[in-house]
Amino acid sequence: MATDWAINTAAMVKKPYFIEKAQALLPRLYRVEEFPVSCEEKRKSKDGYGKGDVLILDFGHNHAAYFRFFCRSVGSPMDAPAFLHIKFCETEKELWEDTANYNGWISKGWLQEEWLHIDELPRLIEMERRYAFRFVKITVLDTSPKFRVVLEQAARIKVSSVKEEDVELITSEDALLQKIDEASVRTLANCMQTVFEDGPKRDRRLWLGDLRLQALTNYETFKNQNLVKRSLYLFAGLPNQKGMIPACIFERPEPLMDDTFLLDYALFFAPVLEEYYEYTKDKETLEELAQCAFLQMDIAMEFVENGIVCEEGKDVGAGVYHCFIDWNEVLDKQCAMQAVILYALRYCRKLCRLLGMPEKEEYYKNLYEEMKQAAYEKFWDTQRQVFVSGKEEQISIASQVWMILAQAVPKEEAAALLERTKDSPVVMVTPYMHHFYVTALLESDEKAKAAVHVKAYWGGMIQAGADTFWELYNPANEKESPYGSHCVNSYCHAWSCTPAYLLRKYGLDKHL
Amino acid sequence: MATDWAINTAAMVKKPYFIEKAQALLPRLYRVEEFPVSCEEKRKSKDGYGKGDVLILDFGHNHAAYFRFFCRSVGSPMDAPAFLHIKFCETEKELWEDTANYNGWISKGWLQEEWLHIDELPRLIEMERRYAFRFVKITVLDTSPKFRVVLEQAARIKVSSVKEEDVELITSEDALLQKIDEASVRTLANCMQTVFEDGPKRDRRLWLGDLRLQALTNYETFKNQNLVKRSLYLFAGLPNQKGMIPACIFERPEPLMDDTFLLDYALFFAPVLEEYYEYTKDKETLEELAQCAFLQMDIAMEFVENGIVCEEGKDVGAGVYHCFIDWNEVLDKQCAMQAVILYALRYCRKLCRLLGMPEKEEYYKNLYEEMKQAAYEKFWDTQRQVFVSGKEEQISIASQVWMILAQAVPKEEAAALLERTKDSPVVMVTPYMHHFYVTALLESDEKAKAAVHVKAYWGGMIQAGADTFWELYNPANEKESPYGSHCVNSYCHAWSCTPAYLLRKYGLDKHL
Repeated sequence: MATDWAINTAAMVKKPYFIEKAQALLPRLYRVEEFPVSCEEKRKSKDGYGKGDVLILDFGHNHAAYFRFFCRSVGSPMDAPAFLHIKFCETEKELWEDTANYNGWISKGWLQEEWLHIDELPRLIEMERRYAFRFVKITVLDTSPKFRVVLEQAARIKVSSVKEEDVELITSEDALLQKIDEASVRTLANCMQTVFEDGPKRDRRLWLGDLRLQALTNYETFKNQNLVKRSLYLFAGLPNQKGMIPACIFERPEPLMDDTFLLDYALFFAPVLEEYYEYTKDKETLEELAQCAFLQMDIAMEFVENGIVCEEGKDVGAGVYHCFIDWNEVLDKQCAMQAVILYALRYCRKLCRLLGMPEKEEYYKNLYEEMKQAAYEKFWDTQRQVFVSGKEEQISIASQVWMILAQAVPKEEAAALLERTKDSPVVMVTPYMHHFYVTALLESDEKAKAAVHVKAYWGGMIQAGADTFWELYNPANEKESPYGSHCVNSYCHAWSCTPAYLLRKYGLDKHL
Repeated sequence: MATDWAINTAAMVKKPYFIEKAQALLPRLYRVEEFPVSCEEKRKSKDGYGKGDVLILDFGHNHAAYFRFFCRSVGSPMDAPAFLHIKFCETEKELWEDTANYNGWISKGWLQEEWLHIDELPRLIEMERRYAFRFVKITVLDTSPKFRVVLEQAARIKVSSVKEEDVELITSEDALLQKIDEASVRTLANCMQTVFEDGPKRDRRLWLGDLRLQALTNYETFKNQNLVKRSLYLFAGLPNQKGMIPACIFERPEPLMDDTFLLDYALFFAPVLEEYYEYTKDKETLEELAQCAFLQMDIAMEFVENGIVCEEGKDVGAGVYHCFIDWNEVLDKQCAMQAVILYALRYCRKLCRLLGMPEKEEYYKNLYEEMKQAAYEKFWDTQRQVFVSGKEEQISIASQVWMILAQAVPKEEAAALLERTKDSPVVMVTPYMHHFYVTALLESDEKAKAAVHVKAYWGGMIQAGADTFWELYNPANEKESPYGSHCVNSYCHAWSCTPAYLLRKYGLDKHL
């Protein structure tokens, strides 16, 4: 994700001890050489490629990789530079997009294309940058009338800190479910580099909201627990002067806090830490980082008055906060944010229990009860029996989902609440929000509905040709983009990888 | 020069001994760091460059050089690649040319521009390729809304196998002559790399016709005699199976014969060798390479019937030959080619004299007399008192110039012949041909006219802004190009460097 969230504060307070611990866990990357499974060519001469000729390589699957090829000249001696355009595409449709006229609002620099002049051939061209691609389209912009180029030995070096073959895929008679599982695992593998990346094509950074979902899926698949640990230490090591951890971390040239702060993301530090402990029993990390989790809650409380979190972006004397929740521009986020605080309070309580801090546990318990009570008073529409948010009393799926996940809704009423609100015009936009919807269904004992939703939503991407899951998927509009152009959408995005977790953790394939 | 000369034959017969001798003479390149003398910027923010901003650096003079700069980001952390377009221009007018719509007939790859994606900043960008430039135009194609880039510490590393400061410029009260001399020396320095290059921007190869003029100018200026020697051995080491030496040599990845053969160029091997000996007294080279010079004449004789060279491109049973003479498409070259053979025969005689080969010397003397006699019968128009060429009896400056240089015209008649034909509609197009015109004036004892012509023609380039001399200069059309677009013209071209030779050798500055 990328957007122009307002800057809360830009002063970073580096914690060297935490950063050092994180850096000591820098993973080794596996590098696997792969060759195209097919290639398509459009050329005028039998012998090499000349001006305007095109070669399209298909590597079979979308992956984070480096690209290389061998180029030599044929015909007369090479009397001019060879001039090539090379475009890397995650999906087939990108091959034919006119990038020259790209006019989206995020950087044109994200378009995966290069212009190469080669003065001397033969030469092994080893491209310096990493790309995310299944397809490579090489267009010969020019040679000269006297020579052409031969493009051969094309290969990519796939990189990841995990090996896909280490994960046993689910066995299901449902071919679509199988494919969903495979694509989920591949998506995660692609996003597991030296940190959990957002997407290997674009952003390529560690985001806390995405980390949560990646960590959960990792525990059920690759079990690279050190990468979660490294990520936790990175976040804890790079807060601002208040102690708030950023929504996102830059790894290079050295670890750096982004100046984007999202309250919901910061509060997810507690669940990520608690779940990490549950899977690893790594008490040292728990002890070292719990304070950081608690601190995020303290900061959240600055935006709470009379048990209610203030509206996003409104200054109530403590500055403003921003939160993510979902990418729906019309979504009123206050109610969902209230629920995320409740949700995080439960994890803070769990951390206290694990650490033997009964007084603090009691404090969080009371806070939870007060804020839950206040939430019902403020957000619960008794007549319509739904949570509403904001002055317009907006009914969104997100508000209900988060109140259910916060366990603020009696279990026996949750399913009906979701059913009542599922056709709200304030729809879910991201796979990220769809994941929480599925978990809310599971929380409501609606395993069959959860399974159906996974199959419909993620299966929809598979049917549209996905082999890794996308940053954004709107079944009604395949070209939808939050960036003004779907050319820069990421077609392999961390927050979409959770079916592999949902299928394994909840055995969803058994409920269809 | 570059054109689609037909291929005589493509089989190269490498002579390892000659190649080794040439390679042992590979010169060391001097690398001199230079900084911009001025810079012009168009940017929206005080702090760094964002999307659409432009920085133009002026290094004061056109040079063959490598470029580097330091790039860092300002604003929020760098959340997208920086995407830059960098264009290198020999002249100011190129800065504003729309290269995207370039449609000339030689390779688009010669346009000196690059597109750079930089994933991580700060970074010292050291561009890999060599360019010829005075100006660098950096356009920021995109950053992101959150950061901008700072471009600083721009420098270029000028490269040449000679040092300009080693040459003492002429001292003249005529400022224009001074500038002509300076630009000539600079042009030559730029073209003296690991071989004598055609032009540092485009072609960058060793051409025999250009070598002749560069060698002469070098003897009067840099005196890097080993570079001439190396060039001679390269040509001698890379003939075709008949022994004909190519018009041009490729140096890398290993020395290679071009498949372009020009009879006039091949015959210039004799004058280059003879003059090299005169300046160096290097008898070993003379002895080793004279056979190669003689062989070019033997090959030329295959195209001679009854003392007359056949027409260019016509097959008279011995294949076809091509020649250069000048870049004027309407020029009939037969008469000039006949004169070039006569000219080369004189140098073959000189070589025989130096080597003590009286019988061969006599043979060339007789051949010269026969062919001169035949030339008068075939090409001399008694009525109009001019040389004519071809069926149309074309009167060109080139025919007269070469007959005078071949000493086929009595000295006392030469000046009048040039005067009679100077307004021929078959004009001279290249500085290369203009050089021979000036030498024909000198051969006719017209030093003042020669000086005036140098000042008018090369001075015209200076007045049009040149600081190195161009591949092509038509005072009537500054945008003229043999390539369909003047964007790919070379603005520093070896064959234009001769004023430095003419001024010194003939003291032309004393005759104005």
